[in-house]
Amino acid sequence: MKYDINIRSSRLLSRLDQLGKIGATEYGGVSRIALTQADVMGRNLLIKWMEEDGLQVSIDKIGNIFGTLNIGDPSADPLMIGSHLDSVSNGGKLDGPYGVLAGLEVAKSISDSIKGGTNAFARPIVVANFTNEEGVRFQPDMVGSLVFANGLPLADALTAKDRDGISLGEALEESGFVGTSAVGAIRPHAFLELHIEQGPILEAEDISVGVVEHLQGIQWSEITLKGQANHAGTTPMSMRRDAGLVAAEIAIEVRRLTTIFGGQLGTVGAVSHTPGLLNVVPAQSKLSLDLRNPNQETLLKAQAHIEVYAQSRAKTENVEIEIKPLVRFAPVEFDKNISNIIERTAHDKGYSTKRMISGAGHDAQMLARICPTGMIFVPSIEGISHNPKEATKTEDLIKGLDVLTSTAAEICRH
Amino acid sequence: MKYDINIRSSRLLSRLDQLGKIGATEYGGVSRIALTQADVMGRNLLIKWMEEDGLQVSIDKIGNIFGTLNIGDPSADPLMIGSHLDSVSNGGKLDGPYGVLAGLEVAKSISDSIKGGTNAFARPIVVANFTNEEGVRFQPDMVGSLVFANGLPLADALTAKDRDGISLGEALEESGFVGTSAVGAIRPHAFLELHIEQGPILEAEDISVGVVEHLQGIQWSEITLKGQANHAGTTPMSMRRDAGLVAAEIAIEVRRLTTIFGGQLGTVGAVSHTPGLLNVVPAQSKLSLDLRNPNQETLLKAQAHIEVYAQSRAKTENVEIEIKPLVRFAPVEFDKNISNIIERTAHDKGYSTKRMISGAGHDAQMLARICPTGMIFVPSIEGISHNPKEATKTEDLIKGLDVLTSTAAEICRH
Repeated sequence: MKYDINIRSSRLLSRLDQLGKIGATEYGGVSRIALTQADVMGRNLLIKWMEEDGLQVSIDKIGNIFGTLNIGDPSADPLMIGSHLDSVSNGGKLDGPYGVLAGLEVAKSISDSIKGGTNAFARPIVVANFTNEEGVRFQPDMVGSLVFANGLPLADALTAKDRDGISLGEALEESGFVGTSAVGAIRPHAFLELHIEQGPILEAEDISVGVVEHLQGIQWSEITLKGQANHAGTTPMSMRRDAGLVAAEIAIEVRRLTTIFGGQLGTVGAVSHTPGLLNVVPAQSKLSLDLRNPNQETLLKAQAHIEVYAQSRAKTENVEIEIKPLVRFAPVEFDKNISNIIERTAHDKGYSTKRMISGAGHDAQMLARICPTGMIFVPSIEGISHNPKEATKTEDLIKGLDVLTSTAAEICRH
Repeated sequence: MKYDINIRSSRLLSRLDQLGKIGATEYGGVSRIALTQADVMGRNLLIKWMEEDGLQVSIDKIGNIFGTLNIGDPSADPLMIGSHLDSVSNGGKLDGPYGVLAGLEVAKSISDSIKGGTNAFARPIVVANFTNEEGVRFQPDMVGSLVFANGLPLADALTAKDRDGISLGEALEESGFVGTSAVGAIRPHAFLELHIEQGPILEAEDISVGVVEHLQGIQWSEITLKGQANHAGTTPMSMRRDAGLVAAEIAIEVRRLTTIFGGQLGTVGAVSHTPGLLNVVPAQSKLSLDLRNPNQETLLKAQAHIEVYAQSRAKTENVEIEIKPLVRFAPVEFDKNISNIIERTAHDKGYSTKRMISGAGHDAQMLARICPTGMIFVPSIEGISHNPKEATKTEDLIKGLDVLTSTAAEICRH
């Protein structure tokens, strides 16, 4: 079966541009934070497009939007394709919208091929936009897909508050996006998400299509060190309790442990000393710790390693230490069959592929809790994302749509 | 000759308490920042006390206050004893006032002994309060003594502005402390300063009197590192340009170099990462560097060592680096004869002594540019200073006054 990918991709590119004008910032960026006015405008535009394409629109109690193409056996579980329209503050045009709008093109391609006489599809297709994926306004992030996949009770999710004290429930009411469908009313047969890589690997290796096999586990912690403020000129080195020194030692060890544990990433992104004065030994230092690994066992070992090291260094410097766990996500393994289909489909089209790990979190990791799930990456120029400079070459955007379309068609055949 | 140190010390302690009520803060602290209303009240009280004691008061063009006891040969250069009444924000009662008010007691002791028939003094005594020693409001610190000792032209000093844009010249005008004496009109034969240690050494070694031989040289720098912001989950370790990592490496090396270079102190008191987010590799890190050593050659070697190291690490991580010099003070050596007199005097009274280095800056370091200068330290409890908890045992305050009085008397004999 052939799909007219040229027609579909030109409409996709045009729609990405149109959507990018909603919440547009300087230098081509986008601020479309969940359930703000800009997000509501984006959602309404999506619903308009879904209706124009003949999809049946439904909205659930957490504001997830679904557009259903009723083909095949109406009682069969549908293939779901989706991502999110919300953005970070001053982010890019592709992170999220690419996956949702490409889903619309897949539905249109398949719908057109049926009108052309094809009747090879066993199940409906649902295009999904999940609420508050970025987590800028409400915690946790990916909450729409998390609740959809039974990972968090709806009632709990709705109580999350933004900085102004407005709850997610109130924001949904105000935006008019409390839908009538029960959360989870749709049971997907499988889920596909097409997304930009948001990292530099595909571009660096000149690969067109990433077949995402795993999504890394994440351990976020906040480490607080308490020593003693002392005069930098009058306190002998031997009498110091320098919280800043221990923070530095931990940061170095975080880099070192990425060479000890296979596949390990480690980042200390934030450090702050108190009182933070040039001529005063730091009394306190807070630092953030971000550890990621696709293997849960290794990830836990790396976390334990840094905790033991940090405790030991703190003791040597006579500094108190507290390690507070923040986020803990176990690694996710995507469906092997779907990965094989993605890879084979890409090869059939002559596109180079790489099996890879997703470093960032995605709605697909939530959907993987309830159905076979696959993810497709396209290259990010210079690996830049969450930034107005976020971009992907047009030819790569088209290849991604092409692989998604054929993969979806194959899954829908059974 | 015997001085009634019990009478003098009880008045000194009472005056320290009275002065401590001016600008008093919670928990026994003091905020008497240079030329604020509280400082002006403290200055006026000092002048009242000087006049009560029969000292001749003069004020110079930078607001330094002098009280002269005209004894001995009126044409001989006087012995000057002094320090400062201004404080940091929420500092202690002793840092500065102890040295000025002890000077008043020395003058009173010697004046009383002359009334008692002694006539062994060759030269006048001047008690001095120097303007803006702490440097909280106007830069540079120690500016009153710096200008007095020809280290900075008066006109330049007067242009320094505080946060509200008020110049030192304007603040002097407003406070009424632009005096009529030319700066430097008094030429000291010698200078003595009695001060709390502001460090933990004397207390830790159970010593009563510190004979300060040197004042450390200081090199302050600000180091800026520029790497690249990257996603903590999607950027392989090998592709990172982590400014925060290099900052941590520099902080560790600063500690290490204190073990390589004799007498070296090193402190990284402030570090800040940009954007400073948990899941973003730091694009930029700024850190402060405070290096001190009593030996100028060693200090410059230590500075060069850390600069070479920092450049090398920055290069390895592909991070840009800029090292900006801030303050540079060469070490000061105090007068050997005066140190010997201080030490001998203390031993005669049965007080334990230690020859030591001052880690902090003092007015005495400026006076050492123009006359033989000596400094006496008394212990600070727990080494705490610039803090409401700043304190010294009463018996140590008395011993300090005792040694200052006898040292001054001996210097004035010739």
